[in-house]
Amino acid sequence: MKKRVAVLGVGITKFGELWDKSFSDLFLEAGIKAIEDAGIEGKDIEALYIGNMSAGRFIDQEHIASLIVDHAGLTPIPAVRVENACASGGVALRQGVMAILSGMHKIVAVAGVEKMTDVVTEKTTEILATAADQEWEAFIGLTFPGLYALIARRHMYEFGTTREQLALVAVKNHKHATKNPLAQFRKEITVEDVLRSPLVADPLRLLDCSPISDGAACIILADEEIAKEYTDSPVYIIASAQASSSINLSDRRSLVIQEATLYAAKQAYKMARLEPKDIQVAEVHDAFTIGEILAIEALGFVQIGKGGKAVEEGETWIGGKIPINPSGGLKAKGHPVGATGVAQAVEIVLQLRGKAYNQVDADYGLTHNIGGSGSTSVIHIFEKG
Amino acid sequence: MKKRVAVLGVGITKFGELWDKSFSDLFLEAGIKAIEDAGIEGKDIEALYIGNMSAGRFIDQEHIASLIVDHAGLTPIPAVRVENACASGGVALRQGVMAILSGMHKIVAVAGVEKMTDVVTEKTTEILATAADQEWEAFIGLTFPGLYALIARRHMYEFGTTREQLALVAVKNHKHATKNPLAQFRKEITVEDVLRSPLVADPLRLLDCSPISDGAACIILADEEIAKEYTDSPVYIIASAQASSSINLSDRRSLVIQEATLYAAKQAYKMARLEPKDIQVAEVHDAFTIGEILAIEALGFVQIGKGGKAVEEGETWIGGKIPINPSGGLKAKGHPVGATGVAQAVEIVLQLRGKAYNQVDADYGLTHNIGGSGSTSVIHIFEKG
Repeated sequence: MKKRVAVLGVGITKFGELWDKSFSDLFLEAGIKAIEDAGIEGKDIEALYIGNMSAGRFIDQEHIASLIVDHAGLTPIPAVRVENACASGGVALRQGVMAILSGMHKIVAVAGVEKMTDVVTEKTTEILATAADQEWEAFIGLTFPGLYALIARRHMYEFGTTREQLALVAVKNHKHATKNPLAQFRKEITVEDVLRSPLVADPLRLLDCSPISDGAACIILADEEIAKEYTDSPVYIIASAQASSSINLSDRRSLVIQEATLYAAKQAYKMARLEPKDIQVAEVHDAFTIGEILAIEALGFVQIGKGGKAVEEGETWIGGKIPINPSGGLKAKGHPVGATGVAQAVEIVLQLRGKAYNQVDADYGLTHNIGGSGSTSVIHIFEKG
Repeated sequence: MKKRVAVLGVGITKFGELWDKSFSDLFLEAGIKAIEDAGIEGKDIEALYIGNMSAGRFIDQEHIASLIVDHAGLTPIPAVRVENACASGGVALRQGVMAILSGMHKIVAVAGVEKMTDVVTEKTTEILATAADQEWEAFIGLTFPGLYALIARRHMYEFGTTREQLALVAVKNHKHATKNPLAQFRKEITVEDVLRSPLVADPLRLLDCSPISDGAACIILADEEIAKEYTDSPVYIIASAQASSSINLSDRRSLVIQEATLYAAKQAYKMARLEPKDIQVAEVHDAFTIGEILAIEALGFVQIGKGGKAVEEGETWIGGKIPINPSGGLKAKGHPVGATGVAQAVEIVLQLRGKAYNQVDADYGLTHNIGGSGSTSVIHIFEKG
């Protein structure tokens, strides 16, 4: 990156089954919090980016950037919707970063929003499956738990990862979420709870899966020079990288190595002039417990194949070598799909400000957001101001 | 804009009811043509942007950027889907421009793709209505022909625009399309044909409406310095502007003034250091005949209220003062919604290269792409190399 991009403000809603809040309500709540946090006014915002996966199917509304910019009273500024399945939020954040770096805009807002509970659960599973290859995966009945179950089984076979190690990812993230008042689940669970929960797609059980959630998050970005007018020590984004691998799981060279993450991570570390060991806190894409294990391996925090062991030995818990998902992660904080990438950024910004619920002492933090079963990966690295 | 962005290559498919081509096929055909035209190789492309309105509903596939980058053999580069209803293509193009200006990428491909004919027509109308306000417009039964009919009726009332003038927009665009081998309709029509065609939403008749189409278009952008390695005289993008107004027609101050276009045009002319009179050819958003009239008025080519008269007096025909839609426009070339904004850019690039089917002698050209009933407007200005 030519220069750093400053974060002026962040805002996030509670995640959960929010029956009394509409899609617009969710955006507005997160957006107003972010504007207040930034100490700016709405009129200072020059462009709006919205990460959203499937409002067209969840609430019968496409063109949501237009809806949101209007409901927020921010017209006539440009508003853009970005969709990359569950990576929509992270990819939208990357477009916001580029909008600043391009010199086209000085201050932009990036939000992620998803309203998933207006349709029945069976329908939600079908909608989420549109992130997989329709013709080669969804059409034959594969769902996301099914895809991740195939990955989990292979990881167990290749590396000896145990069923208990998978469960420990959920146990850890539930424990982290107990301190997060905005998390969907704030209840500690045990390995036994996970192993006794209903089987969804063998070997994955209900408590291996992130929930269906409504929610929104927003982050205000600014040009480094402009930011100085608003704050003495903003958090900075120092790397923004995205990569792709085949959408269809069966076309990948390996089921258990997240190649898009390997590639994006390499770029991100190069941009930030850092190595994996320099990252002190990270929010990674644990849509399923096995997902967190794949992520920490591909990000270089642990060796490939050693992710299960790392959680077992406490390395990824608060207080461990590299605390992962202090917010509770997708598993316990909740996973309103298009909002997740932005919500991860909100958590890391709060960590680097020293204002997190589960505070980690860190100068550098990372977010890792996945679309599909791993085919889109987007990574941001943040630096304390 | 800090500097110009070069256009290295363009490609476009035939538009129409392309039963034998899939979503991926359409992208690949346009993409390969653009790569060949640019004289580059696939591996030179550093990022891919896809404008698409509703693959989630038209073909049950979200995450289409991932699908496309994979099917094109372009992994591991980042791929991003942009959705702003029928302005998806133009908004995607703007993100591509910013990706270059940001310094993040040197060469990017921007494509627009839509596959609309895999569902029945009633369903298509319903899907297109997701670009309007679901809660205040679509829910009560308003469709896009209905929204534009309200606008047309008001334009006739306020400015004395006649039914025949609306028809002449369609007659002109059909005539222009007779020379375009890739157009969906290559048949001349008369004012009488339009007036005798079935009533869709009074006063709009079938031949006032753009068709339902499949199609794709692709454009390869490059940093100005890099472009010199490939071509001596690329066409340049010298302005890229986008603006928003209320998504709900009833919330606008005026039904007949495209406020988002007024605002975006002001920005675009300022960026390009040009005035409306300097533009010598334009592709504008004529999803309905009245749309072209609103566009040329808001773009400043004619006075507000004089758009109908301009087409009647021949000003907007090939050979007139400001030829509009030499490609045939959305009306006759076809309107695969997410592809349209990129297709417009392809036509203007060919015009400025002197390689168009309906050649206009021009140094400067403009594209104008609308989302919804006018709430998103995105404008690009191009300069001959």
